[in-house]
Amino acid sequence: MSLIYFLDLVGTFVFAISGSLAASEKKFDIFGALFVASVTAVGGGTVRDAILGSTPVFWTMDTNYLLVITGAVACTVLFKKIVTRLRTTLFLFDTMGLGVFTFIGVEKASLMGISPAICVIMGTFTAVLGGVIRDTLCNEVPLIFREEIYATACIVGGIIFVLLSYLGLADNITTWASVFS
Amino acid sequence: MSLIYFLDLVGTFVFAISGSLAASEKKFDIFGALFVASVTAVGGGTVRDAILGSTPVFWTMDTNYLLVITGAVACTVLFKKIVTRLRTTLFLFDTMGLGVFTFIGVEKASLMGISPAICVIMGTFTAVLGGVIRDTLCNEVPLIFREEIYATACIVGGIIFVLLSYLGLADNITTWASVFS
Amino acid sequence: MSLIYFLDLVGTFVFAISGSLAASEKKFDIFGALFVASVTAVGGGTVRDAILGSTPVFWTMDTNYLLVITGAVACTVLFKKIVTRLRTTLFLFDTMGLGVFTFIGVEKASLMGISPAICVIMGTFTAVLGGVIRDTLCNEVPLIFREEIYATACIVGGIIFVLLSYLGLADNITTWASVFS
Repeated sequence: MSLIYFLDLVGTFVFAISGSLAASEKKFDIFGALFVASVTAVGGGTVRDAILGSTPVFWTMDTNYLLVITGAVACTVLFKKIVTRLRTTLFLFDTMGLGVFTFIGVEKASLMGISPAICVIMGTFTAVLGGVIRDTLCNEVPLIFREEIYATACIVGGIIFVLLSYLGLADNITTWASVFS
Repeated sequence: MSLIYFLDLVGTFVFAISGSLAASEKKFDIFGALFVASVTAVGGGTVRDAILGSTPVFWTMDTNYLLVITGAVACTVLFKKIVTRLRTTLFLFDTMGLGVFTFIGVEKASLMGISPAICVIMGTFTAVLGGVIRDTLCNEVPLIFREEIYATACIVGGIIFVLLSYLGLADNITTWASVFS
Repeated sequence: MSLIYFLDLVGTFVFAISGSLAASEKKFDIFGALFVASVTAVGGGTVRDAILGSTPVFWTMDTNYLLVITGAVACTVLFKKIVTRLRTTLFLFDTMGLGVFTFIGVEKASLMGISPAICVIMGTFTAVLGGVIRDTLCNEVPLIFREEIYATACIVGGIIFVLLSYLGLADNITTWASVFS
């Protein structure tokens, strides 16, 4: 399992928990929680793949995403108090998730020969889209449009990119990027 | 005309009426009614086809869906009192619609070689997505996240599946499924 | 540069300004403004291309759209007073944008062999979808469902179509339509 794939699943887990908590605040039932958790976690990547024409989209070909989301919803329901208490810690992972999702989006787009500026836009948009859909479904103005989280995520994304370059992963991008194609 | 195709059009009609009624409650004009009715009726299937890469999506290749939706909006506008009075009866058809849409989604995904668990998720998501978009457009928290309708729909979906198996339709799935591909 | 392509970029600019103004009214930050401006400007065309399977979607292959949107957001932020004062004038361009977007959508769909009635639906839906997403993101009931703008836009769309036919552009549609394919 490549490092990026592992971080992707961690990001999916944390995003699913944030969706699940938002659903629980709105007193949605278990189905609502699963729905909101899923669109938060894989909504951005789904739109990215639909825009790029990389279909069937990634999570239909890899059951791990479904397992991770179901696990995240189960954790939120069973250990709600612990999860709520850990929220500040989760926020860090959330920011990391944004960074990883941006990174994956940028790479996937660039492998399709799309110009760099649009790759960055694609990466960013698809990273934040899950949260935007989550807030829209919960009938809230999207959090990301009001908070400083985006700037932080950009920095984290940059750091991840630099780290991966340093580790020599970005040099042979095609090797690990094939995991997501 | 296959049974599933007929039930699909009935489901489309009922979903379009539910969208049309929601638009009328919000005092939308006729264009708003057509828009909301359409996304309620074919929004779920559109997203399903976009995710699976089965494009152009189904309703662009078959004018019957457009006719059925226009008819449903016309009925709601012309016979609003009758339609409103029939709402409880319509609810039954609505649940049937959810069942049929789930069934079609599951079959379409499984024909593409997607694993069964994800087929069920795909079927369910795309069946309920139309209603979720309808409620979001009307600036309401999606009804489906709060009500028991989903459980009912699952049971209906199961019954339809069993009935179709019993009628021998599920045995030669490829024959009738080709209608939707 | 063909006339339609130029009008398309003008429409994109005006739609991006309307998104940017809506974001500013909701006190979104600069990232929120860019996000809302982008989905308002290219959201409709993106959904159109995803539905038709014309991927990667148009704006990923042509950086001009990104430049125009960024320019529109910059104008709104830097010259907010002037832009707000020009709102009534912009409204005219907005209506023109709806007309052009409808026209492009109709043509793109018809080149794929889709039947005329559905082409018109596709064109209209994708023209208004950007504004619908903008209003949904801003937690408002979509303006288009309540106002007369749609009828106006249809007339403008019709006029543009007639004008282009008069100029002989619609006769050799394939020539200029290839710009968008």
